[in-house]
Amino acid sequence: MTLPKRVSLGEKFEQITEHWSPKIVGALNGQHVKVATLLGEFCWHAHEHEDEMFLVVSGTLVIEFRDGEVSLGPGEFTIVPRGVEHRPVAREEVRVVLFEPEATLNTGDQQNALTVDPDWL
Amino acid sequence: MTLPKRVSLGEKFEQITEHWSPKIVGALNGQHVKVATLLGEFCWHAHEHEDEMFLVVSGTLVIEFRDGEVSLGPGEFTIVPRGVEHRPVAREEVRVVLFEPEATLNTGDQQNALTVDPDWL
Repeated sequence: MTLPKRVSLGEKFEQITEHWSPKIVGALNGQHVKVATLLGEFCWHAHEHEDEMFLVVSGTLVIEFRDGEVSLGPGEFTIVPRGVEHRPVAREEVRVVLFEPEATLNTGDQQNALTVDPDWL
Repeated sequence: MTLPKRVSLGEKFEQITEHWSPKIVGALNGQHVKVATLLGEFCWHAHEHEDEMFLVVSGTLVIEFRDGEVSLGPGEFTIVPRGVEHRPVAREEVRVVLFEPEATLNTGDQQNALTVDPDWL
């Protein structure tokens, strides 16, 4: 057997060169583990069939909803249920880990200039 | 809509009173997010149908395999593929986040005194 890999989140974040471009760092049970750095405002979107977890590693991430917002600091997470419109906003650079199904697109039901097809890092 | 909850991993770890007793802190896409504190040696086991992710928050976790081991420090993770025998060993207290299917038992294919039915925290 090949030993499972040790993955350092810090080393992965160091390799990221673009904001809002999640990179896949792990796969299990049909889900992907992704890392992303965020800065500024993303677009409003929803994921029709996928719940999405945001775990903040550094910085403060605000996730806006149509009727409120959730603010996450380092070591804090939230789970956005499928179908719920949300908009991530990072007033400073944020490092975030995402857990979501393999099929999840970053812009959900929206296709625009922010949409990326995530690569492995 | 009820706003999604903000969950602090640190606050959850502070509420844990037993080692080797994972607590559920999130659910999404048929998966559970769990937190556990570990100290000492666990039993050898495998999960027949479930891949299991270990993300270390503090301490050093060694995951022994039949032909080697993976050592994880803070901010590092590994994914143990389904069917692979493994034994977690914590020489010091370790705080770990687990990401695995809802059906996953901590002792996998083994039923023994270490087996727990995880509660929500």
